[in-house]
Amino acid sequence: MTSGVTAVPGFVAGGIACGIKPSGEPDLALLATDDRIPATAAGVFTTNLAQAAPVQVSRRHLASGRAAAVVLSSGNANAATGEPGRHDAARMCELTALGIGVAPDDVLVCSTGLIGIPMPMDALEVGIPKLCGELAADGGSRAARAMMTTDTKRKEAVARAGAATIGGMAKGAAMLSPAMATMLAAVTTDAALERHDLQRALAQAVSETFDCLSVDGCRSTNDTVLVLANGRAGAVDVHAFTAALTEVCGSLAEQMARDAEGATKFVTVRVVGARNIAEARTAARAVADSQLVQCSLNGNDPYWGRVLSELGASGAFLDPEGVDISYNGVTVCRDGVAAAHDERAIIAALAEHDIEILCDLRQAHGEATVLTTDLSHAYIDENRRTS
Amino acid sequence: MTSGVTAVPGFVAGGIACGIKPSGEPDLALLATDDRIPATAAGVFTTNLAQAAPVQVSRRHLASGRAAAVVLSSGNANAATGEPGRHDAARMCELTALGIGVAPDDVLVCSTGLIGIPMPMDALEVGIPKLCGELAADGGSRAARAMMTTDTKRKEAVARAGAATIGGMAKGAAMLSPAMATMLAAVTTDAALERHDLQRALAQAVSETFDCLSVDGCRSTNDTVLVLANGRAGAVDVHAFTAALTEVCGSLAEQMARDAEGATKFVTVRVVGARNIAEARTAARAVADSQLVQCSLNGNDPYWGRVLSELGASGAFLDPEGVDISYNGVTVCRDGVAAAHDERAIIAALAEHDIEILCDLRQAHGEATVLTTDLSHAYIDENRRTS
Repeated sequence: MTSGVTAVPGFVAGGIACGIKPSGEPDLALLATDDRIPATAAGVFTTNLAQAAPVQVSRRHLASGRAAAVVLSSGNANAATGEPGRHDAARMCELTALGIGVAPDDVLVCSTGLIGIPMPMDALEVGIPKLCGELAADGGSRAARAMMTTDTKRKEAVARAGAATIGGMAKGAAMLSPAMATMLAAVTTDAALERHDLQRALAQAVSETFDCLSVDGCRSTNDTVLVLANGRAGAVDVHAFTAALTEVCGSLAEQMARDAEGATKFVTVRVVGARNIAEARTAARAVADSQLVQCSLNGNDPYWGRVLSELGASGAFLDPEGVDISYNGVTVCRDGVAAAHDERAIIAALAEHDIEILCDLRQAHGEATVLTTDLSHAYIDENRRTS
Repeated sequence: MTSGVTAVPGFVAGGIACGIKPSGEPDLALLATDDRIPATAAGVFTTNLAQAAPVQVSRRHLASGRAAAVVLSSGNANAATGEPGRHDAARMCELTALGIGVAPDDVLVCSTGLIGIPMPMDALEVGIPKLCGELAADGGSRAARAMMTTDTKRKEAVARAGAATIGGMAKGAAMLSPAMATMLAAVTTDAALERHDLQRALAQAVSETFDCLSVDGCRSTNDTVLVLANGRAGAVDVHAFTAALTEVCGSLAEQMARDAEGATKFVTVRVVGARNIAEARTAARAVADSQLVQCSLNGNDPYWGRVLSELGASGAFLDPEGVDISYNGVTVCRDGVAAAHDERAIIAALAEHDIEILCDLRQAHGEATVLTTDLSHAYIDENRRTS
């Protein structure tokens, strides 16, 4: 039984160490259709104006709406590398195309890692041809391993939509900080979908999953989510497919949050009762992004005053004296003021690893959930030096 | 020679410990006109929807455009306290009014400290009358001391505008986090200004100083800046006054940044070459607010890739391949890619306590500066528990 992207019939994958990472860990992954026929393809990319070279190249190659392979490297983001960087990203596609026998335009490329450093192309000139010879129907996990940067675990997910399978793999910012050069995900399916339906399904799935994971809401230089549909399982209901794709992306997003190194908490901020979904998201994100809320969670402190303050400053409409806040079901704020509660119950609630902060704005029915973590010493230690 | 708010003729002040803080430290400050005649008054308040009770009461009292006194307490924010909180804030004004012989509506009130806890009014019922008997023409520093929460130093400033003097005092969020319940500042002057000119001058000074200090740009439940003008020095040029008021507020803002406990760096993010001032501010704030940029600064790491990524995601327009970035004058990024530089020079630059990150977007002439700090273990330690 293979997992992730090779759980879907018709896809092969692999991963090796080619020498991008000084540590010698796996750093090059490849995913392709087993017959080399281009699949229908869609992608969602960072909205950052400072787009990494592989993002620029993949966007151009995706204009055709099809792709036969995705090559992914970790350890170097190939971002802020200018024209030489674009040349290097295009060369990675070309090397892959030569290695598996497809057109360069049918190859997409993703990179993740440090920003501002030229790609070590010597390693890739050797590594990509080598990896092309090692693609296998059970290679999904090796590919997922080779995407990792500071991730400690592979991230894979599978779901079904009718007769079709959807398989995905991802690497997170280990610290859940999209301003690193950061999250990549590749998804395969054997569902047959029209190109624009596939793009719409992906955009919707991303908006409800990866977009609800962020610490600060901004997209990094490299963020990319790709999906390849080879059509072998035939047509599927678009709604069922979108739901299953959302399930896969949601699982990958949760795995990213749970693998945040140094984090001692997996935190779900849920806002209900907002005037609409957009305001619910704005409010949930404001609470999740708050350094002070994250510090309180690190200290197991149910300091709801900070939550209320972030809600009030978020831009979402609310009556501060009509807000209720609970931690894992223990209500500590009702009508915007301190609520009587069982002290032992709240201590027990905050001692949990998984914390849900539920905020009811009591305006209407807008709901949204954002995943985050606490802020720990280890986060700082991980990010204070790049070397 | 008195400092701060009592450096201005015609104002008296004082500060005592009345028992709000369990530590027994000073926690109650009072500022008043020496003849009890209301001065022309203006204020800028938090835009947070969750406004603390003293903000609500002060806004109402300020509708008259005049005030004879400001009472300030620290240790308890009187925020998220509902109708009882408003009653308590109004009672603080009433006690002050009774103590010094003015109308309750001519007293403004500010509080700072923990959110969601009822004010210990027993302490204030005794403390305010006591403090009213201790006001003095040299009491400015005692008042500045009594406003402090986790601040380690008093924050005072004085400037001149023609024949007039402007004196100010403030308390910062020691951690530079406006989401605490947070910054308060009171300014006095003997300049004679029409009410609306005073309000305009204050709004402009705040926008260029306190508004450019934030880590996250959102205003807390309690943020308040007040100015009282008794007119004794006669009319002044409004532009000269605004400049001097900006100087006072700027000094207080810088003192806040420099007193950020746990911070090892005082950081100035300066963006030049933006299309306009608004975009320059947006871009500078995005860099200053970035947890990852702050982590890099904590590690003396000139990781300009994170700065470029934050600029690109900020919403300000730029060509990523037309951006230059330097740290204390050492250019590490030119045209959006790594720039050759002297390694010893950049190591020396990052070892400084004061760091200026200069970002040139090379679009037009919009410039802005935002002050911030690095992110340290001590920040987390200070904020993980409220008790």
